[in-house]
Amino acid sequence: MLSVAVLGATGVVGQRLVQLLEHHPWFELVAVAASEGSVGKRYGDAAAWRLPTPVPERPARLVVQRPEPDLGATIVFSALDAAAAGPIEQAFAAAGCVVVSNASTHRLDPGVPLLVPEINPEQLDLVAGKTGFIVTNPNCATATLALALAPLHRAFGVESVCVTTLQAVSGAGYPGIASLDILGNVVPYIAGEEEKIEQETRRILGIADVVATATRVPVLEGHTACVSVNLRRPADARELADVLRTFSGEPQRLALPSAPRHPVVLRSECDRPQPRLDVGAGNGMSTVVGRIRVRERSVQFVALGHNTIRGAAGAALLNAELVAVRTNLVSRCAVQAVTGTQPPP
Amino acid sequence: MLSVAVLGATGVVGQRLVQLLEHHPWFELVAVAASEGSVGKRYGDAAAWRLPTPVPERPARLVVQRPEPDLGATIVFSALDAAAAGPIEQAFAAAGCVVVSNASTHRLDPGVPLLVPEINPEQLDLVAGKTGFIVTNPNCATATLALALAPLHRAFGVESVCVTTLQAVSGAGYPGIASLDILGNVVPYIAGEEEKIEQETRRILGIADVVATATRVPVLEGHTACVSVNLRRPADARELADVLRTFSGEPQRLALPSAPRHPVVLRSECDRPQPRLDVGAGNGMSTVVGRIRVRERSVQFVALGHNTIRGAAGAALLNAELVAVRTNLVSRCAVQAVTGTQPPP
Amino acid sequence: MLSVAVLGATGVVGQRLVQLLEHHPWFELVAVAASEGSVGKRYGDAAAWRLPTPVPERPARLVVQRPEPDLGATIVFSALDAAAAGPIEQAFAAAGCVVVSNASTHRLDPGVPLLVPEINPEQLDLVAGKTGFIVTNPNCATATLALALAPLHRAFGVESVCVTTLQAVSGAGYPGIASLDILGNVVPYIAGEEEKIEQETRRILGIADVVATATRVPVLEGHTACVSVNLRRPADARELADVLRTFSGEPQRLALPSAPRHPVVLRSECDRPQPRLDVGAGNGMSTVVGRIRVRERSVQFVALGHNTIRGAAGAALLNAELVAVRTNLVSRCAVQAVTGTQPPP
Amino acid sequence: MLSVAVLGATGVVGQRLVQLLEHHPWFELVAVAASEGSVGKRYGDAAAWRLPTPVPERPARLVVQRPEPDLGATIVFSALDAAAAGPIEQAFAAAGCVVVSNASTHRLDPGVPLLVPEINPEQLDLVAGKTGFIVTNPNCATATLALALAPLHRAFGVESVCVTTLQAVSGAGYPGIASLDILGNVVPYIAGEEEKIEQETRRILGIADVVATATRVPVLEGHTACVSVNLRRPADARELADVLRTFSGEPQRLALPSAPRHPVVLRSECDRPQPRLDVGAGNGMSTVVGRIRVRERSVQFVALGHNTIRGAAGAALLNAELVAVRTNLVSRCAVQAVTGTQPPP
Repeated sequence: MLSVAVLGATGVVGQRLVQLLEHHPWFELVAVAASEGSVGKRYGDAAAWRLPTPVPERPARLVVQRPEPDLGATIVFSALDAAAAGPIEQAFAAAGCVVVSNASTHRLDPGVPLLVPEINPEQLDLVAGKTGFIVTNPNCATATLALALAPLHRAFGVESVCVTTLQAVSGAGYPGIASLDILGNVVPYIAGEEEKIEQETRRILGIADVVATATRVPVLEGHTACVSVNLRRPADARELADVLRTFSGEPQRLALPSAPRHPVVLRSECDRPQPRLDVGAGNGMSTVVGRIRVRERSVQFVALGHNTIRGAAGAALLNAELVAVRTNLVSRCAVQAVTGTQPPP
Repeated sequence: MLSVAVLGATGVVGQRLVQLLEHHPWFELVAVAASEGSVGKRYGDAAAWRLPTPVPERPARLVVQRPEPDLGATIVFSALDAAAAGPIEQAFAAAGCVVVSNASTHRLDPGVPLLVPEINPEQLDLVAGKTGFIVTNPNCATATLALALAPLHRAFGVESVCVTTLQAVSGAGYPGIASLDILGNVVPYIAGEEEKIEQETRRILGIADVVATATRVPVLEGHTACVSVNLRRPADARELADVLRTFSGEPQRLALPSAPRHPVVLRSECDRPQPRLDVGAGNGMSTVVGRIRVRERSVQFVALGHNTIRGAAGAALLNAELVAVRTNLVSRCAVQAVTGTQPPP
Repeated sequence: MLSVAVLGATGVVGQRLVQLLEHHPWFELVAVAASEGSVGKRYGDAAAWRLPTPVPERPARLVVQRPEPDLGATIVFSALDAAAAGPIEQAFAAAGCVVVSNASTHRLDPGVPLLVPEINPEQLDLVAGKTGFIVTNPNCATATLALALAPLHRAFGVESVCVTTLQAVSGAGYPGIASLDILGNVVPYIAGEEEKIEQETRRILGIADVVATATRVPVLEGHTACVSVNLRRPADARELADVLRTFSGEPQRLALPSAPRHPVVLRSECDRPQPRLDVGAGNGMSTVVGRIRVRERSVQFVALGHNTIRGAAGAALLNAELVAVRTNLVSRCAVQAVTGTQPPP
Repeated sequence: MLSVAVLGATGVVGQRLVQLLEHHPWFELVAVAASEGSVGKRYGDAAAWRLPTPVPERPARLVVQRPEPDLGATIVFSALDAAAAGPIEQAFAAAGCVVVSNASTHRLDPGVPLLVPEINPEQLDLVAGKTGFIVTNPNCATATLALALAPLHRAFGVESVCVTTLQAVSGAGYPGIASLDILGNVVPYIAGEEEKIEQETRRILGIADVVATATRVPVLEGHTACVSVNLRRPADARELADVLRTFSGEPQRLALPSAPRHPVVLRSECDRPQPRLDVGAGNGMSTVVGRIRVRERSVQFVALGHNTIRGAAGAALLNAELVAVRTNLVSRCAVQAVTGTQPPP
């Protein structure tokens, strides 16, 4: 087993990471770190657990540490706030750790991979040969969107994208958005989100003309994206559906533990995808696409993704799995598991 | 006072009409009609009243009648279902009534005005000189959208529109959408809605390239539209805001009783408009616009309108007021009020 | 495997039964029946599936039949509406089937068991020796409440109960309660519910003085009950908690497949139980109790249960499992599974 | 006009006070005070206004001051947090101001009136002859409950009360309860609330046996109370309804500006009161009662009140109006309005 730690473990994304790591076949959670107020407490007491499954027993007993690079972990998941992530993640990388980050801080750094394993595994070339480095995943809305756009872009070329997102409250963390603001309401603004969608989609897919409007809706989990794209060449509805349905990549080829069988799941009912019914597709790792309308080069569809799984914790986990395979950490695991030593730098 | 009747008076839109007519300075509600199950009952008993204000006292005592053209009303408001509206509205028109309809049935008939008084009052030329005729208002989402697009189209030319709507449950009538379907959820489909938005916007404004995605969200009142438009000529943010803010038309010039002072209300806060806070702007008759982003010819904004007022009952009322002025019914009122007779054809 | 059928299979409770039966170790779903509109359709098409997991594949292919006693099932689950259940259930019982019903129709019939296996397994004496018979489970709110009251009644004697329920919308079926009625609202009335709670609690536990107020709240799954009881003898907080925590019965002793390990789960946090976090306790088969306050003989607590699992489909399933063991149907299963014949009467 | 100030003016209750004071016939808002972060800002900028009506224009231009007794106001409304209210309110009282407080701090002080003008106007005897003093109103849930209990207690004697409240999120202030905690959920705990209901009901009505369970539900405005009482003498349903319907007191006799015509409004429909439909009764100053069930001495009913109006800001306003009349401040107003001077102590 490969030793991993979670930074920012008490937050919404940190809790998801702890949950998803519970029965992970390769990774063993050996340390949790969080901000000063939680340091020294048992994780089970420090985390205001907000998931419907119980706190996993072993992590619950871990004592929360400071996010400093002596946690005894080969891979460090960062669920830190963007404000705090910058220097902390760099310190861990400098200390030789693989930092798999969900924070936005380094996503646009040219030397840092912004990785969606099904789409751009070659981003890992940026850190080839390095021991300590940072790998990032896209923001929650981009993660959902990019999985739906990638196959279309490959097959038809995507010229421009106009997208409106309807995002769940869990995306704002905890306490996040006040109930007085969102009960029976829509808040048509999420700070920085539209820029992230536009810039990260450009970096991941090379699509320059992306216009995004991000809204918050009273949904717990699951970001919905209403998307209109102009293709470079006209599409046929059947061909387009086939392209989405058969989309697959490295994680599927390598059978990574967190890889969904189908990165994109199609629903043909007239009123799907819906957060409540579809958010769990592929254990929260698939983007669910429906309501496809094709008029030559103009295509509309609705995409849905699980914002704290594929949009955050699960994305980081899949990234870590790809890194582990690519850098041979997985095979080194066995050694480590037996000897209990850290793998050599 | 001019005698008016409401057809489909027990539904969500019918109730709003009865509410808005309560203290109307020109119109007196003399009859309510509804489907067979309600006929013969007191309106107060027949209507499952769902508004937070009480049923107005006089209408509550009216006996619900069949929707047949002997209701003793000069103007007949139709809040009928589209399925039923066709022949009934025609029968009333044939009998010499002014039928002011919220139903979609006749909206695209070339001889029937599809009227938004601030935008296209000249539509009434279609019925000039006629005694009995039908006038329609746009569907709820289009009503909100058109008020925001009209000033932009006039000033800059709107080449194309990409819009996603987040629509309130009251737009689906009563019982409408099941709570199991919409609590904590988004339903990315409303039957026929996208076609209506595209076709009606084309008819009202002459914009051919409109792409719409309609979703239902757990909001009670207030449709939000996230809009991206391409203009014919580049806009300047300040000029664009001025154009919206100063937009005005016939209803304002004539000071019609239901006319909002400002058809478009601008909000400069970064997170507005919001249904809960802004739906009552202009007594529910204004479209509230915010989050304006301008990049040369590419403009994004969010528009909000009250779907059962400006999007339905209030739109019909404003249409009726314009018709009453244009056809001199208002001045004829006095005579009618005194003699109790129908105005001569 | 024992052949079972579900009557009323397309509704909310019927869907839960089909879901829970998917991997059942003893029962095999061989037939689904529903009302006339669904007869002849594939179940996957007829059921407006509202659960976040997909329709199980084999049931999806079953053709919906009329609820008539030739379905080839030894045990028949009835998720019929109370209005329809009476004669249909009797016909199945007369034909020699074990009818395990969630309908309220026969719950108060003196000869029909009203069974909560942990509390009153002796109710099955009422049908001892019979071949075809009906067994019922309590209504959803009573099911939750009774599991919490039973250990207290045994240990201390419960003199009187004052309970307010906050019930989820799934308890009203589909389409059930309109979103316009419940979004951001409380409806302090559920037809017949208070009488059911009072009468069924009396029948199950023999507590005569029960006063109930039933309300509907905008929650999807999980009925919350705020309970105040007067005990016959003063309780000590620790003793009372122990009595609840250690409560156990026949299903646990027999290790029935659907039995929760703990019929009552205690939460010691100050703000639990909560529907969103606790509804899945014991796979939806446990009552979760918290906020216990003890002042001598006056005790208050909050109880939560999964209304469509322990309150309906899961309760029926547990009842069927107990019946299967008691009537030796389980051992007869093997024969049946091999020969494909019905067990002899 | 009598000069008034609002302390804690930026919070949810403070905003309501500012809103309700806008067109008040006797009181003129001359100063607003809030915590350090807001001091020096324009009120319109400092208050994160969360009401659907706009910030009143004049208050919006006031500069927020420190809560120190030189605000130039005769009556000072305190919407301070309980933690801060104690010494601040005492300082204002010591400086000769009439402090009308919504904070819980002094509610149980024997020398401080806990006033519900319809129920116990004689509480003002406690401060008779004093110049500066504090007057408090009950907490939001108690305010609703007490208005319904008072007439029953007078007519029949109330021996014991068992109440469960379903409270709106606005009662928790802003940001208050996180959306992740309450969307589609019930939180069966509100810190300190049950004690307040029990103790304040005892002080106001002298009913010693009150057992309360307080829950939070996803409702914006309006606390619902499900109440079961045991009366001293058996009641007849009709007599009981009459007693509630005709309940009236000092505010009605004096025609105080904020007094509702009927302190208790009865609804006879089977499913009322509901927050969404009934919260505005009596401009938010009435308790709406429905679902009355009478079984000799055991009576159940549901009561609803507007938690930020009758439960907070409106209660304080009504208290201030009664104080103004009782202490002749209203007649002194005229003098003050003309001369612009403070009334002599």
